[in-house]
Amino acid sequence: MSIATTMIIRLEIRKSEASFGDVAARLASAGGDIVAIDVIRGGKDVTTRDITVNVQDAANEEIISVLKNMPGIKVINVSDRTFLAHLGGKIEITPKMPIKNREDLSLVYTPGVARVCMAIAEDPAKAYSLTMKRNTVAVVTDGTAVLGLGDIGPEAAMPVMEGKAMLFKQLADIDAFPLCLDTKDPDEIIRIVKAVAPGFGGINLEDISSPRCFEIERRLSAELDIPVFHDDQHGTAVVALAGLLNALQVVDKAIADCRIVVIGIGAAGVSICRLLLAAGAKQIYAVDRAGILNRDEPYSNPEWSWLADATNPENVSGGLDEAIRGADVFIGVSGGGILTVEHLQTMAPDNIVFAMANPTPEIEPELAEPYVRVLATGRSDYPNQINNVLCFPGIFRGALDCRAKAVNLEMKLAAAQAIAAVVHPDERNEQYIIPSIFNEKVVEQVRLAVIQAAIATGMARRIPPDIS
Amino acid sequence: MSIATTMIIRLEIRKSEASFGDVAARLASAGGDIVAIDVIRGGKDVTTRDITVNVQDAANEEIISVLKNMPGIKVINVSDRTFLAHLGGKIEITPKMPIKNREDLSLVYTPGVARVCMAIAEDPAKAYSLTMKRNTVAVVTDGTAVLGLGDIGPEAAMPVMEGKAMLFKQLADIDAFPLCLDTKDPDEIIRIVKAVAPGFGGINLEDISSPRCFEIERRLSAELDIPVFHDDQHGTAVVALAGLLNALQVVDKAIADCRIVVIGIGAAGVSICRLLLAAGAKQIYAVDRAGILNRDEPYSNPEWSWLADATNPENVSGGLDEAIRGADVFIGVSGGGILTVEHLQTMAPDNIVFAMANPTPEIEPELAEPYVRVLATGRSDYPNQINNVLCFPGIFRGALDCRAKAVNLEMKLAAAQAIAAVVHPDERNEQYIIPSIFNEKVVEQVRLAVIQAAIATGMARRIPPDIS
Repeated sequence: MSIATTMIIRLEIRKSEASFGDVAARLASAGGDIVAIDVIRGGKDVTTRDITVNVQDAANEEIISVLKNMPGIKVINVSDRTFLAHLGGKIEITPKMPIKNREDLSLVYTPGVARVCMAIAEDPAKAYSLTMKRNTVAVVTDGTAVLGLGDIGPEAAMPVMEGKAMLFKQLADIDAFPLCLDTKDPDEIIRIVKAVAPGFGGINLEDISSPRCFEIERRLSAELDIPVFHDDQHGTAVVALAGLLNALQVVDKAIADCRIVVIGIGAAGVSICRLLLAAGAKQIYAVDRAGILNRDEPYSNPEWSWLADATNPENVSGGLDEAIRGADVFIGVSGGGILTVEHLQTMAPDNIVFAMANPTPEIEPELAEPYVRVLATGRSDYPNQINNVLCFPGIFRGALDCRAKAVNLEMKLAAAQAIAAVVHPDERNEQYIIPSIFNEKVVEQVRLAVIQAAIATGMARRIPPDIS
Repeated sequence: MSIATTMIIRLEIRKSEASFGDVAARLASAGGDIVAIDVIRGGKDVTTRDITVNVQDAANEEIISVLKNMPGIKVINVSDRTFLAHLGGKIEITPKMPIKNREDLSLVYTPGVARVCMAIAEDPAKAYSLTMKRNTVAVVTDGTAVLGLGDIGPEAAMPVMEGKAMLFKQLADIDAFPLCLDTKDPDEIIRIVKAVAPGFGGINLEDISSPRCFEIERRLSAELDIPVFHDDQHGTAVVALAGLLNALQVVDKAIADCRIVVIGIGAAGVSICRLLLAAGAKQIYAVDRAGILNRDEPYSNPEWSWLADATNPENVSGGLDEAIRGADVFIGVSGGGILTVEHLQTMAPDNIVFAMANPTPEIEPELAEPYVRVLATGRSDYPNQINNVLCFPGIFRGALDCRAKAVNLEMKLAAAQAIAAVVHPDERNEQYIIPSIFNEKVVEQVRLAVIQAAIATGMARRIPPDIS
């Protein structure tokens, strides 16, 4: 995937030798798109300007060298807006009230704080009302599976986790803090998360590689009394199901009647299959490098063994070619380019294709479009983006507000249905099966659905005052 | 120590049976001090008012029962300002910039963030410029020695740590985050802090009981390349030394000539002795329950063995009675009430007494005053409060700004001298040896001194632009 970057280039232009028109022409021919121009200093002979330019990633250096080689032009400085936005980090920790004088200090710190501490020591559940716990989520990673970049380590994972914390606050008013761990040992990660848990109301696991992520989440969920949610597994699954529910409405098929191929049975793939089953799917083929998971093969991965039992009712074997023939739905969370036009041509009529591999989809959307009725990807530059940002803010808002003990399957299913329902039936069509992440109804409706599901399944420890 | 509390009492007053004057009179006689009155609803027969009342802690319930027993008065609700200030916690995590649209999102999150992650993966030192690391401190506790309350556990420690985070931000613009750990095992605490370290520029250990705190700090300092600072040890020591330096000026004595008794050789006591030695003290008696530490006794605590060698030059034995006879300086970080007027009468002329035990000083200030030239305590209701808040914001600001590898003895000494120097020689007197925590020069001057000491001792990895 090519990433557009914005650069801000500060130039001195010597008027006798060059004009701004020359600069603009050269920039355009080198692939730069001028977005803004600011005059910093205007002089008789020389003007200094900041030129904001959108460029495709690869063209950055070419553009600068083109400018440097122009007579009368001096490149003073090049800033990259993406890097500028990251300088010094993207989140901060701020007091909710100022400490203006000694009286304030004695309220929030010594000596007054001692009475609050004692109240919690006598009844630890009071931590929910008297500390930040009730609104705070740890975003925990070991940096082993960051975006599509792989194992880049805890420091390099920080920008993603900070960005996630920004989204938590902005979209759901949740205080999220990144914990990027310098260990890859699942036991150690579990011990650490359990030890830091007293200060948190929930744990968002993030970008932890498969299959380690399954054990870490399963054991933490069992051993902690706060919600633990691995977003790469369930966030993707919830949003994919939301999109699928609407896509099925568009093509007028029932989930129970559909043959569904899920390819890439890693963190997200397992959760997608599980959620599809919960939503009523009967004919799922779970496909990975080993082919269609079936009951004749032994699998060392316990998730695969479970899926081999729970899916593939006719115990078919084979690969993608066999799985996709006659299928109604293809859901890909695997690798770029594995899907061909020929595959699509063997699918059932009114087929649905979610090609969510990151950064390169299982098939280029332009290639696929003529052969697909409803197409979705993980990318923002095509319609129907399956984006986790639609799920985690609302699901945690709901779980925190009802002090859920965990996030169970029913709560995830409710979240998917709520996301789907944000798209009104009148608006729903092939190009619009999933709401925008900036749609303000999403968090509100996911929250409500998650709380109701938590109450119905005995997960809620509190009924929020707005829930009847 | 009695703690003043502010309560807000909502009352209905039935005019035919009682007047506000009656209420005020009863409140006053029960020990309540009316600070503010707000009329919530005024009616013909009944008015509803919020009355804000300052009370001594013990009188809370008495005041309410007095009001409940008054004819014509109905107590609707009682709020406690301290508890109100803690509702939902005292800090929040906020984005530095809003995410308004998809372009913003692609700058701070996917896909733009991937380039920033890769830049850090290639050069982890870039975490200092491209993440929150450079300005972020973990406030780590296991809840074993919180204030004077003892081992109250991680949940109950949260309000103190949140208060500390507020002070970090307000006084030094540092982003501090509480990590209250559900383990008391030093090895486990060390492993956890090391594992979370990638996201932090410094570690503030807090309220960890002695002697476990020594090993935890020592090993973390050795094994991490970021500053690790146990505030209960060194914060207290730095501020006590600052006060002592000014007190010695007031009485016109040199530290090298003074006999100094330090009593209570726990976390703070050890650090005080070490810092006094670094500041040039020659005759220190370190006293604990085992008496004056000396070279004839075997001690299981390695800190005590070290101090027995480094102090007590004449190898005296005995207890507080022997130690204090003829002493110039008494520094107490032990227990309430252990010091008597008779002890003070045996001290040298122009004696200096720091009675810092919390919450009850080694001797009541009123009792001590006639027999002491310069008196300091840990309390805010007497002159000369020795308060850690004078140290930790500035010392971390300095350490972060020069990316110090650690906080060494020279940096602590420099911090103490800087705090002392904020009190101008013309202002300095028996009642004013230490600046107020709200004095804005403190953080600025401590920062500067700490950076200069870090540079001079090879601890700094960066020279901030404002340092020449």
